[in-house]
Amino acid sequence: MKNSKLKAFIPFFYLVWSDDLLTNTEFLTLQKFILSQSWLSNEERENLLSKLAVSSPPSREVVDHWKFEIETVIQENPSVKSLFNLSILLSEMDKIIKDQSAAFVQLEIDLGISGEEAMGNFKTLANTFTSKDQTNNRFEIEKLTQILDGKQAAIIKKVKSVISRPEFAYETSTDTAVYREKVYSWCKTLADENLGNMAYPKQYGGGENIADYFAIMETLSYHDLSLVIKFGVQFGLWGMSVQSLGTEKHYSKYLKDIGSLQLPGCFAMTETNHGSNVKGMETTATYNHKNQTFTIHTPHEKAQKEYIGNAAVHGQMATVFAKLIIGETDYGVNAFIVPLRDANSTVLEGITIGDCGLKMGLNGVDNGTIRFDNVVIPKENMLDRFASINEKGEFESPIPSDNRRFFTMLGTLVGGRIGIPRSALAAAKSGLTIAIKYSDQRKQFGPEGGSEVPILNYRIHQRRLLPLLAKTYATHFALQYVTKRFIAKNESEMQEIESLAAGMKAYSTWNTTAVLQECREACGGKAYLSENRIDALKNDTEIYTTFEGDNTVLMQLVAKNRLSEFRKSFGQMDAMGIINYVYENAKTVISEKNPIVTRKTEDAHLMDGEFHLEAFQYREKTTLASAAKRLKKLIDSGLDPYDAFNIVQHQMIDVAQAYLERIVLEQFQEGIRLIEDQKSKEIMVKMCQLYALSQIEKNKGWYLEDGYMEAVKTKAIRKMVNQLCWEIRPDAVSLVNAFAIPDSCLAAPIAFLKH
Amino acid sequence: MKNSKLKAFIPFFYLVWSDDLLTNTEFLTLQKFILSQSWLSNEERENLLSKLAVSSPPSREVVDHWKFEIETVIQENPSVKSLFNLSILLSEMDKIIKDQSAAFVQLEIDLGISGEEAMGNFKTLANTFTSKDQTNNRFEIEKLTQILDGKQAAIIKKVKSVISRPEFAYETSTDTAVYREKVYSWCKTLADENLGNMAYPKQYGGGENIADYFAIMETLSYHDLSLVIKFGVQFGLWGMSVQSLGTEKHYSKYLKDIGSLQLPGCFAMTETNHGSNVKGMETTATYNHKNQTFTIHTPHEKAQKEYIGNAAVHGQMATVFAKLIIGETDYGVNAFIVPLRDANSTVLEGITIGDCGLKMGLNGVDNGTIRFDNVVIPKENMLDRFASINEKGEFESPIPSDNRRFFTMLGTLVGGRIGIPRSALAAAKSGLTIAIKYSDQRKQFGPEGGSEVPILNYRIHQRRLLPLLAKTYATHFALQYVTKRFIAKNESEMQEIESLAAGMKAYSTWNTTAVLQECREACGGKAYLSENRIDALKNDTEIYTTFEGDNTVLMQLVAKNRLSEFRKSFGQMDAMGIINYVYENAKTVISEKNPIVTRKTEDAHLMDGEFHLEAFQYREKTTLASAAKRLKKLIDSGLDPYDAFNIVQHQMIDVAQAYLERIVLEQFQEGIRLIEDQKSKEIMVKMCQLYALSQIEKNKGWYLEDGYMEAVKTKAIRKMVNQLCWEIRPDAVSLVNAFAIPDSCLAAPIAFLKH
Repeated sequence: MKNSKLKAFIPFFYLVWSDDLLTNTEFLTLQKFILSQSWLSNEERENLLSKLAVSSPPSREVVDHWKFEIETVIQENPSVKSLFNLSILLSEMDKIIKDQSAAFVQLEIDLGISGEEAMGNFKTLANTFTSKDQTNNRFEIEKLTQILDGKQAAIIKKVKSVISRPEFAYETSTDTAVYREKVYSWCKTLADENLGNMAYPKQYGGGENIADYFAIMETLSYHDLSLVIKFGVQFGLWGMSVQSLGTEKHYSKYLKDIGSLQLPGCFAMTETNHGSNVKGMETTATYNHKNQTFTIHTPHEKAQKEYIGNAAVHGQMATVFAKLIIGETDYGVNAFIVPLRDANSTVLEGITIGDCGLKMGLNGVDNGTIRFDNVVIPKENMLDRFASINEKGEFESPIPSDNRRFFTMLGTLVGGRIGIPRSALAAAKSGLTIAIKYSDQRKQFGPEGGSEVPILNYRIHQRRLLPLLAKTYATHFALQYVTKRFIAKNESEMQEIESLAAGMKAYSTWNTTAVLQECREACGGKAYLSENRIDALKNDTEIYTTFEGDNTVLMQLVAKNRLSEFRKSFGQMDAMGIINYVYENAKTVISEKNPIVTRKTEDAHLMDGEFHLEAFQYREKTTLASAAKRLKKLIDSGLDPYDAFNIVQHQMIDVAQAYLERIVLEQFQEGIRLIEDQKSKEIMVKMCQLYALSQIEKNKGWYLEDGYMEAVKTKAIRKMVNQLCWEIRPDAVSLVNAFAIPDSCLAAPIAFLKH
Repeated sequence: MKNSKLKAFIPFFYLVWSDDLLTNTEFLTLQKFILSQSWLSNEERENLLSKLAVSSPPSREVVDHWKFEIETVIQENPSVKSLFNLSILLSEMDKIIKDQSAAFVQLEIDLGISGEEAMGNFKTLANTFTSKDQTNNRFEIEKLTQILDGKQAAIIKKVKSVISRPEFAYETSTDTAVYREKVYSWCKTLADENLGNMAYPKQYGGGENIADYFAIMETLSYHDLSLVIKFGVQFGLWGMSVQSLGTEKHYSKYLKDIGSLQLPGCFAMTETNHGSNVKGMETTATYNHKNQTFTIHTPHEKAQKEYIGNAAVHGQMATVFAKLIIGETDYGVNAFIVPLRDANSTVLEGITIGDCGLKMGLNGVDNGTIRFDNVVIPKENMLDRFASINEKGEFESPIPSDNRRFFTMLGTLVGGRIGIPRSALAAAKSGLTIAIKYSDQRKQFGPEGGSEVPILNYRIHQRRLLPLLAKTYATHFALQYVTKRFIAKNESEMQEIESLAAGMKAYSTWNTTAVLQECREACGGKAYLSENRIDALKNDTEIYTTFEGDNTVLMQLVAKNRLSEFRKSFGQMDAMGIINYVYENAKTVISEKNPIVTRKTEDAHLMDGEFHLEAFQYREKTTLASAAKRLKKLIDSGLDPYDAFNIVQHQMIDVAQAYLERIVLEQFQEGIRLIEDQKSKEIMVKMCQLYALSQIEKNKGWYLEDGYMEAVKTKAIRKMVNQLCWEIRPDAVSLVNAFAIPDSCLAAPIAFLKH
């Protein structure tokens, strides 16, 4: 194009031939524009139209030359901001072109390529702020690790050193038999290191340290999760059932051998037909006074014990739960020690073992089914702490109600509801460490003409991972609290603590499922390769939401427990009375539920921990009162309570969730209050803000429905969540490094990329 | 208790000793009450207090007798409704007791056991409506199946008959080599049945029927998903790349052998360092004019081809994407056929194959890495439909822009974005069939004294599965629509259809991930056993959200595409102009955004398909306009467009989601409009209502923020979702049976329980 006036069209030609989004319609628009410009001579018009012939496109060299001309002009005039200004410059400030301002601007609009955005196509080596964001160290990682480990630092260090030994290299065989034996031998090593018997009394060789026991469970979970579950079955379920349900004679006979893994055993509660409703189990233990024995029997196939860990291969004995029958009377579920195999691993007569076979995960654990065909065991094998049979052959128990006795027994076994959520927490930490370290190094896409940027610089990627990281930190502090409460529990708190542990088991395991799902997707194809371990983490923990009680069932229990506390307060009040009650109990909050507060959006307010906690507390109280009110109304209207509870199940989940979220936030805030190191405190405060605000954002439908917040506020909160993610991003790698997971456990190659 | 007056206390004694929830506090409350009743003699008081001694609990027989007395009274007086009335009856209408009404009622309140709920403890064999709910046939399953299968019924029937043959029994070996060979041999059988070449032109032995090809992909997905992916790699990716990117000389040379699986091949695009941003790939194809050859080369390790299906074991050739270099010039990405192995499966010189090893799923597919060390191929191996090298050795293309050419090439390969979401849909159907059939038979818990009830009778269980079932039905109709659009596409629609397919790929695969997650949890431990197939379905489809483009990246593209449409309309308008534009375009809706409509909660309105569609459309338009406005503001303020797009990524996801949800609803409604069978239509209308309302419920935060709905309406919608779930529950089993998945494919034992 020698005619400099015509050069005004270069940007448009370049765009229609190079832009991936423009379609035939744009060609037509440009052709029409050229045809309609009366200041063009016929020849000029022909010339211009020839550049737009779809049947004979410009050569690549021509397009490149256009680009070169444009870039040259931009380099000389870096401040050029619109396509039309570019056209003027290219035309060497041609007067005719200048006069066509309105027409050209309209063309830009018609083509949908107006504004500065279109100019982005021509800028080279862009120095965007998205590109510049990077990892930074703004706090001392080791100090934060110390805070997380707390008093258990020593045992955590010991466990890490054991599982980092060469013999703990991950098993890669897909042969289940090989994997099971490897896991068993790892358990042996842990037993030899006196880690298995940590919770047992000293007089039976134990460490008498429950806090350390839970820290062991959690730390082991950085390694293979089959190992953790096998460990938990042997030393937790099997050993603790003997300790919690048995008496002195059982302790002295079994505990030492259990702790050393001389006596591998099982915890045989669940039956095929009775999982969640385990109270309905059908295995029987019939007492024979003459022989002083019990006969253990599986009445039909669906009453077999199922999913029992250690059963398929290694278990020599089992704590078997069965209905105790004396004469014609059924005394409800009690526990008995039943031998399964002899010392040579031969299955004993009357016992039939099935293998659960391949599972979605945890294939290093030998889950099996157990059936009993009139297996006779001596009377002393009854675990008789809560019920026994006296010399006369009569049933005796301090708890006459069968139900109540059974739930009391279960209550002593609640340790699993601490161990599992803590194991889940560790798995979430592993997943986040892998995903965040990868995202910090993995580069993809970038500004026009610039280099590719780490995917963690993308806002959506931050949104996917950082609120989950905050929630995982929050869960860490909450589980520390639950553990402490559990260890220091006394009789009067039992019910509250059992409910809290059940709820936190659901909370933590659901978090882990969500975290690992997001980590898998966020790491793309790499996370699908088993070598990167998201596979194992995800599939092994998948059953955690079912283990130790189905999460949804547990949430119903937690909510019922919350209600039974609440009901005592309002009793027979009418609807108005209940509403008053709620307001009485939420006075601090109510004072805020006025137009000024519901619309308050200053940063200082939104970031205020008190605002967060009040919002959480308000939700907790309101969902509880509302479920109570609804239930009462349904029952008063003549509905069977069973039906009424069914109708409100959905609300009950909200009640439990709001309760747990309040606990988690409260404990995260309390944990932070105790931090002395200033920099650690600052980053934890940010994480706590992110946790609180992202939960409020998740629940914004509820807050808006209730009127506790108005739209202007929930929108401001969304923006703040984005902002916090952006601010935390440079600390993200340090935050996962603070989990201090051994490299040999992490193992995933993508966690160790260096560019 | 001989003293009939004292029998008034029996209900309370029974409750404190039998209720699982009462604690020590209740004992104290009851003791205090007894102490404070002045009408009791000292002896009577002592007698009563003795029943409350925690140190010497009543024997089990005593508690049973209390229960017997209570039950007897209730049987004689079935209308008794409160604990105090029960006390009066037990006391044989004692006058003193009657006078204590206020005190007793207060006691009930203090104990938190007032109201009819407490009476539930004494009712036996309760006949609750929750228990009575059951599966029912209210429409003809076969007719619904016909509607779903439509014109593809014949090919679907054929595929089902092939995959139900004995040789298609699932492979259970955990040995990857065995599994890969089995999948390969299955593919052979499918090729022999002329199913592989279904989409190829007839002159090359094909069936020339793309609609049938997609129906084959979907139906095969009821069987092993490794098979589907292997099938898709061979006949879809490999074969279709030759057909779409090559010319006649390639067709005649290769297509027949590809269709018969004589020539197994690969589609080698993704590189380790370039997955989502595949445009940045680094493999080179350097043209040598003298020899008329290309040299294919991998410049460094991270530029190797990765995750390539068919590469590790079976592939003999590959379509390799590489940057074409002529002289000093890089002509962007083009495609070349490169031989990998000879007929004896020996890897050729210069080629290095790696094995991706164990994966989370799809282990029957041999994914591998490929590296090229200056591999020379003849000139004719360039797939030259969109670019070629002329006699003089010059580059020629009708599309001069490298980017645009590459995206045009990719556009012809979009079939995978139809095949994958349809395969995902089938997997969701399988999961739901297993979970719903199991939940209909699996019984757990029940009313006091009644039998256990199927878990699908629980509201929360319905809530977990039925909205997902509705969404899966909705997705079915939407994917039928996308397939039709894809097959009938013309040039001017390409961009819209590509974007639609990309979006529906994300929509359907995310739905499948959510469905299978819920199915796993809803089926508890049983779903963890591999025999029940949720394992394989979940792990095999897990990568679908990454396959054919990462879902999050695709959603950004979809939104950008929506925006580029939209931008043309508003161009340089100011903020007010944009808002006006939105209102202009949403006139029908705006007329409804008034206090009467935003609060409208009558059933007829909430169930109205027009209301649903308008709500979806309103959300679509508003999110789009709002993202556009925000972007414009950011760019106008001087931000680099790249940074501006990064900031709004979160909103972009909303834009794409709202667009897709509108399409899905619209197509579900349109599909229903065409149904002739009245009963099928009725149940589909219910499912569509459930889909629409549960999506609105999910987005209620948005609707409330926007003011399109008020709290009273979103609350009514929540109730309606519950109600719809309850109403649909009896049809749930029929609705999954209508998918007509062969029993041999379903295979899961839990799907075939009978009580």
